[in-house]
Amino acid sequence: MRVLILSADNFEDSELLVPYYRFLEEGFQVEIASMRMGIITGKHGYEVEVDKIIDEVNADDYDLLLLPGGKAPAELRKQPAALEIARHFFAGNRPVAAICHGPQILISAGLLKGKRVTCYKLVATEMKESGADYQDRELVVDGNLITSRQPSDIPVFMREIMKMTHS
Amino acid sequence: MRVLILSADNFEDSELLVPYYRFLEEGFQVEIASMRMGIITGKHGYEVEVDKIIDEVNADDYDLLLLPGGKAPAELRKQPAALEIARHFFAGNRPVAAICHGPQILISAGLLKGKRVTCYKLVATEMKESGADYQDRELVVDGNLITSRQPSDIPVFMREIMKMTHS
Repeated sequence: MRVLILSADNFEDSELLVPYYRFLEEGFQVEIASMRMGIITGKHGYEVEVDKIIDEVNADDYDLLLLPGGKAPAELRKQPAALEIARHFFAGNRPVAAICHGPQILISAGLLKGKRVTCYKLVATEMKESGADYQDRELVVDGNLITSRQPSDIPVFMREIMKMTHS
Repeated sequence: MRVLILSADNFEDSELLVPYYRFLEEGFQVEIASMRMGIITGKHGYEVEVDKIIDEVNADDYDLLLLPGGKAPAELRKQPAALEIARHFFAGNRPVAAICHGPQILISAGLLKGKRVTCYKLVATEMKESGADYQDRELVVDGNLITSRQPSDIPVFMREIMKMTHS
């Protein structure tokens, strides 16, 4: 199983690190893509190394897309390459897991119209305006799309991701 | 499966949060014990709520003891109640998992003489002086005891913990 994590500076540390370590525990291959190579730093100061810049990502190389939250998605949603990656996963009906502010990337990619989704409470208004069926629940699954609201939802979020990657 | 996490202020955030969320994902019951009730805050600013004070812990109520690192173990090792909890787990040959500075509690409890163990590099000298067989490897297992060195070891550390709790 090959996982792509899209993130940038000011990511929500636990929403990136907990899945990252969980995937490695499981033996998955994980790559982190961002706007530039080097180190990205979370809101809480954790540093992770970028494996690839988003312009060079071939989405076909991965089985799962993870979109952590924090302030990173606000930057990534301005990047056409990031939106193309998300669209490619949806077109192939491959698993996409987004938490907190992560779904902002999917809103900008125009992928949520009619989809059942959740997100961080401050993102709910723009999510509804994008035509999504927003639900205030710890976990919402709609086809290939897994969404959760915040760090405290990580256990159910990860349980569902692991279930989907093993089915 | 019932897990007890012993920690305090200035815990290494990822070494507490990643296992914590992982155990909840697995459906385990998890309680955090510290010197006093309320909130403890990690080195990176994450806050977790204390479920029980160490003086009131009945170690028989738990199947696994987790000792995260950071600066918390330096305080916990001064607490007789914390050392008694660790000794109780060893006496019952129940799983104890310690990472980074976490093994300092086991050194103070006098539990590492002749044991194969690892820890954060700055703890290695006092670990050897306590009579332990220190090894600089990402994961060391000796009977009921699982040890790792640092956050980047979390994937193998958690893989071994999950294996031991399912055997």
